[in-house]
This record gives sequence, structure tokens and C-alpha cells, in this order.
Amino acid sequence: MNTPSPYGTHRVIEPLGVLPQAAWKLDARMVIAPNEILIDVQTLNIDSASFTQINNEVGHDAAAVAAKVLSIVAERGKMHNPVTGSGGMLIGRVAQLGADIADTCGLQVGDRIATLVSLSLTPLHIERIQAVHLERDQIDIEGQAVLFQTGLFAKLPHDIPETTALAILDVAGAPAQTARLVQPGQTVLVIGGGGKSGTLCVYEARKRAGPTGCVIGVSPFAKDCERMRQFGWVDHALQVDATDAVAVMNAVAAVTDGRLADVTINCVNIPHSEMGSILATREGGKIYFFSMATSFTAAALGAEGVGKDVEMLVGNGYARGHAEHALNLLRESPALRSLFEGLYA
Amino acid sequence: MNTPSPYGTHRVIEPLGVLPQAAWKLDARMVIAPNEILIDVQTLNIDSASFTQINNEVGHDAAAVAAKVLSIVAERGKMHNPVTGSGGMLIGRVAQLGADIADTCGLQVGDRIATLVSLSLTPLHIERIQAVHLERDQIDIEGQAVLFQTGLFAKLPHDIPETTALAILDVAGAPAQTARLVQPGQTVLVIGGGGKSGTLCVYEARKRAGPTGCVIGVSPFAKDCERMRQFGWVDHALQVDATDAVAVMNAVAAVTDGRLADVTINCVNIPHSEMGSILATREGGKIYFFSMATSFTAAALGAEGVGKDVEMLVGNGYARGHAEHALNLLRESPALRSLFEGLYA
Ligand SMILES: NC(=O)c1ccc[n+]([C@@H]2O[C@H](COP(=O)([O-])OP(=O)(O)OC[C@H]3O[C@@H](n4cnc5c(N)ncnc54)[C@H](OP(=O)(O)O)[C@@H]3O)[C@@H](O)[C@H]2O)c1
Ligand SMILES: NC(=O)c1ccc[n+]([C@@H]2O[C@H](COP(=O)([O-])OP(=O)(O)OC[C@H]3O[C@@H](n4cnc5c(N)ncnc54)[C@H](OP(=O)(O)O)[C@@H]3O)[C@@H](O)[C@H]2O)c1
Repeated sequence: MNTPSPYGTHRVIEPLGVLPQAAWKLDARMVIAPNEILIDVQTLNIDSASFTQINNEVGHDAAAVAAKVLSIVAERGKMHNPVTGSGGMLIGRVAQLGADIADTCGLQVGDRIATLVSLSLTPLHIERIQAVHLERDQIDIEGQAVLFQTGLFAKLPHDIPETTALAILDVAGAPAQTARLVQPGQTVLVIGGGGKSGTLCVYEARKRAGPTGCVIGVSPFAKDCERMRQFGWVDHALQVDATDAVAVMNAVAAVTDGRLADVTINCVNIPHSEMGSILATREGGKIYFFSMATSFTAAALGAEGVGKDVEMLVGNGYARGHAEHALNLLRESPALRSLFEGLYA
Repeated sequence: MNTPSPYGTHRVIEPLGVLPQAAWKLDARMVIAPNEILIDVQTLNIDSASFTQINNEVGHDAAAVAAKVLSIVAERGKMHNPVTGSGGMLIGRVAQLGADIADTCGLQVGDRIATLVSLSLTPLHIERIQAVHLERDQIDIEGQAVLFQTGLFAKLPHDIPETTALAILDVAGAPAQTARLVQPGQTVLVIGGGGKSGTLCVYEARKRAGPTGCVIGVSPFAKDCERMRQFGWVDHALQVDATDAVAVMNAVAAVTDGRLADVTINCVNIPHSEMGSILATREGGKIYFFSMATSFTAAALGAEGVGKDVEMLVGNGYARGHAEHALNLLRESPALRSLFEGLYA
């Protein structure tokens, strides 16, 4: 191993010179450098776009998902889906602290933590897969992972079940960015509003847009729309397929007297939803693409193609304080909490 | 052909239901619907990321570039590079106006126009390639194209050579967005500052950041850095490879006392420059990815991976008034004008 870099470039096998996220292959030997943290991993939370792609590819079978995950990790030294480009995150127990950071990183051996950096850049070694939870994109494993010096983490809270915290922390960037983007009185569209990040964004949007605002959720599934309506955070739950761009636009136009959305948050886990987001957003509005299935060129050239002057944001998974912010949503809303605990605990 | 949609969905052959940019294949029969415009094409301006990819793939040979372009257009009905996902734009002469829009579109048969929508969504038929200009990413053809009802265009100006206008209009979104993003006194980094869009952004950034601001250009080539210095719009021209993320960060840190950039504009034509842009931008700063070689996941997960809370914008090629804005830069600066006329006229 070369001199340990705070960004982990010493773990890059190929291509040399890039950072770990951009690398094809990482060195996943579980011997840590003096500025690294070794983690005994308990559960992986696979990014929903990645999990959905793999699950579809292998035909919705837990054993086949496990085999595919093992082969990706064996080949790349990290759980970096080569089709979607995305990762996920993990929870586990601190097994060892590098000498250079032991006193300053704020952790003790034995602490239970969640990594807040993507699995697409986290050196990972899987000994054995114990269980694949198809319904919640999580995989229990025996194995180890390495966190770099600049890698963010959160200590797991004591008041929230660990697998619920894992699910929430995976998408913590989404409600934090929604809080920044939405102003009182605005019309906010959450595409994929029935999902994990979508539900948190709908809740956050309702708080920020306030009683004079309008929150619209989109899902292609009747049961998701029904649930959105029951919780009461949306003004409208529209049952539309996000990949049918013109249908999304028409449905949103119908409930906004043609004014469309001021802010659109895209939280789907499937490709080809860029144009629907663009057409349903008003001229001068903003679109936050949290979905990892977003295509950069489809968004950039799609907006240009219809002459739509909108600000489009790349869904940075990190925002200062995002982990605490997301967990606090569960603490302040019993309804949100019981929903997530029901699904993920 | 189905009922003509203002977005051109009636031209989509596969997959059905998507808009033309997202389509794999368009119907490029040059018989127009009542809401379309037929154009006799003179010159294609291939998007630089696309042209660079094709040119590298075929080994820098004009005839091989021509063959590749012909095969893509024959297969897809549009010049939509399947590797980069990007297009470019074109200039030509209005050949026919659909009956429904003839009176309202502001054009006459015979008008010379540039399309302001991407070639990645423009039905195109090439009769014959007349010349490939390797040095300026342009291809003279005999052929026809179709503009949809919502497709933007600009009449070609009389005071600027047509191929220069074509080059400028291709990247008109970049200086327009720079003008919106940069505030007086800010430190602005233009990565790929020696290129076409890069030069316009450097010029615009200088105007907006003003005398108390700091403009930094990055290019890996000595001659580009030399030229940037000669024009005098940059405070620093740094000779660094944009794909070497840590080198870019260190070089920018060195000339800003470690403060890094407030605003970064990425104008390169090659992949893998996301991390350099992220590391060289200060916490809380903004990054505008104009480059069509940008990977969405590399940007989103890369920023998260290093815990950098930056706002990252997808380079929408369109902004209201962008064509006039870009052409006016040439009108106000004789230095800029003679540079571009030297390269593209
Ligand atoms: N930017 C980041 O840092 C970051 C971090 C984590 C995750 N992500 C991404 O964020 C996205 C959402 O993640 P998540 O965990 O919230 O996923 P999730 O819980 O699976 O939610 C996705 C939602 O989209 C719905 N959906 C599926 N197809 C749809 C369609 N055609 N139209 C409308 N909605 C549709 C899904 O419905 P069903 O479940 O009923 O199919 C689901 O409700 C994913 O793309 C994920 O990769 C990004
Ligand atoms: N968002 C949109 O709507 C839109 C529209 C048009 C174009 N674009 C994209 O914008 C980008 C720039 O377009 P353009 O027409 O300005 O291209 P350009 O004139 O070719 O400029 C690209 C510049 O990047 C430089 N470069 C190449 N490798 C580099 C490296 N490793 N490090 C730093 N700089 C490097 C190039 O140098 P050399 O030329 O000396 O190699 C050139 O100066 C392209 O990716 C293009 O696809 C976007």
C-alpha cells in the first residue's frame, strides 16, 4: 500500500490516479493504514436504484441477488453496481482504529456506526451472506469494511431500531436538501413520493411549504397513493408513471391550474424519469434529482430540447447535519416513525 | 405518423412513449407534419464531448469520422452519440414551414437559422458528407433536418460569420449561466478554460467577478495557459490535468491561500473530471457542470464521499436569452471576436 491518503487513493488498484469512487477496483485487504477505520459489518443497505436493477436482472430471487452481490464485491473490492454506478451504505461495529486517528476521530472500538459515504467507494470484504431482505433492499453479512480518514459516519442512535436508522440514513440527504429548497407557499412535486426518500421529502415539503403551499406526490401504484393520502401530508396524490413525461405534466397541470411545480424532487428508483420532472416544473423552477438512475445528458439536453429554463440540481447525498436532521423527523412525527418502523425494523 | 405533438413524440419509433431526446430511434422521413419546420442543413456542429469521443475511437481520421457519423444517423435517425449521450446543433436554411405554424413561428422559407436544440433529438437525414473539419468539430453536409413546434432556433446574425456563430451558439448556455452564478468579488474556477465554452465563461466570469474577484483557468496544455494569460481575463492560468483531482485541488488551493473556489464552471470535453471540480470548490460553493462528459453518479456520490456540501448544477443548455447574450459577447469584445473568428470562420 502507498502512503495513506485522507481520501483513500492508496486503496485504488485501477485506474491509478483517480479517487476511490471513480475507481474500477479497490484494494479490499482488511489490514488498515494508520488513518483508516476497520468495521465489522452487520448489514448493507443497497441503494434502491442498484437493488432494483440487480433484483430485476436476476429475476427477483434472494439467492441470485446474493450471488450477484458477492461477484460484484469480489471483482471490484466494493459494492459498486457497474450498471447504475451507485452503492448504498452499511452499519456495523468499529473493530479497529488506525493509530493516527484513534484519538481524534471520536470513536471507540466497539461503537456501533453507520457509514455516511457510499458503498461505491468503501473497501468491502464479504465472508458470508446471511440474509437478503428483498422487501427492504438490505443484506445481512459477515464481513469487514474500511472507512477513510475523510469518510463520514454517524453513531447509531439508541432510540431508533438499527435497521430503521440504516434505511433513514441511506437517504438522509433528500429531506435535508428539500428543507433548503422549499419556501412557504410553494408548490412542491415529489416524484416517487411513496418510497423511502420520497416519503421523507413529502413530509419535509409539507413543513416548509406550509398551509399556503401545495404538496403533490406521484406514484404509479394505487396503494402508494392511498397511503400518501392517509398520512395527509400531500394535497394531491397522483397515480401516474414517472416515465410517461407528458402524462406527469398533464396530471400536475390539472391540479395546479396549469401553473406546474415550483420545486420538483425526483426520488424514483428507475431510469427515464428526467423529462417528466422537467415538463412538470414551471419555467424558472428548480428540480432536485435525488434519484441515482438520473442520466446527466437526458436532463441537460432534455431541458434544452423543450426550451425549459429550470435549475437542475445533482442530488449530493451529503448536506451538513443531514443525518441528525433525518433521524429527528422520525422523533418529531409518530406517524412517520411507525410507518418506517413497520417497514424496516 | 401519429398526431403531431409539439414535443415531437410522433417521431419516436422506439421506445414508444418517451420524448425524442430519450428515444433510441426517430422517424427521419423528411415529410413534415403541420407543426414542423423542414431545414436544408449546411453544417453540423458536433458537441465537443461527442466529437472527441468519436475522433479518438476512429483514430483521428476525417473519413472515418464521416463514416461513423453516417452510421449513427442511419441507425438512430438523429446524430445522437450512443457513448456520450450528447449531440450538438446545426445551421441551415428553412426549406418548408408546416401549415399550422407558418404564420406564427416568425420564419420565412429561405431564412438562415441555427437550431438551439440538441442534435440528440433532431430528426436528421444525411444525403452526403462534404467536409469534416477536425479542428473545429464541424461537418458540412447535404441533408435535411426537422424542428419540432417547441424547438428553439435563432436567425443567423448578419454581422458574424456563420460558422463562428454556429460555434458560439452551440455553447451559448455556458456564459449565460455563468452570468447568473457569479457575484462580484468571488473566486471563479473555469476547468477547461482554454476551450470554446471555457473561454466565453472566463470572459463572462471576469465581467461578473469584477476587479475584486479572482478568475482561475485550468488547462493541461501550456499553449492554452499561455493564451489565457495573454488575453488577461484570468488572474491565474493553471496547467493541470482536470482528471487529476488532487492536483487540481492543490493548484487552486495554492493560488487562493487555501480558500478554494466559490464557483466552479466545468467546461471540459473528456470524462472523469467531477472529483477535481468538487475538491477545488469550497464548502458551500457551487459547481456548474456544463461538460456533457459528466457522470451523474460520480458527481453525487463523489461529493458525498468526501463530505463536501456543495451545490452541483446540471448544465442546462438553455437559459432565456442565451443566444443573444453569447453573440453580444463577441460584439462587445474585439479580442474575443478575433479569437473566435480566427478559430471558426
Ligand atoms: N443522491 C444520493 O445520495 C442517494 C442516496 C440514496 C438513494 N438515492 C436514490 O434515491 C432514489 C430513491 O431511493 P429510495 O431509497 O427512496 O427508493 P425507494 O424507497 O425504492 O423509492 C422509490 C420509489 O419510486 C417508486 N417508483 C418506481 N417506479 C416508478 C415509476 N415508474 N413512477 C413513479 N414512481 C415509481 C417506487 O415504487 P415501488 O417501490 O412501489 O416500486 C418507490 O416508491 C433511488 O434512485 C436511489 O438510488 C440517492
Ligand atoms: N450543457 C450543454 O448544453 C452543452 C452544450 C454544448 C457543449 N457542451 C459540453 O461542454 C463541454 C465543452 O464544450 P466546448 O465546445 O467548449 O469544448 P472544447 O472547445 O473542446 O473545450 C474543451 C476544453 O477542455 C480541454 N481539456 C481536454 N482535456 C482536458 C483535461 N484533461 N483537463 C483540462 N482541460 C482539458 C480541451 O483542451 P484541448 O482542446 O486542447 O484538448 C478544451 O480546451 C463539452 O463537454 C461539451 O460536450 C454542453
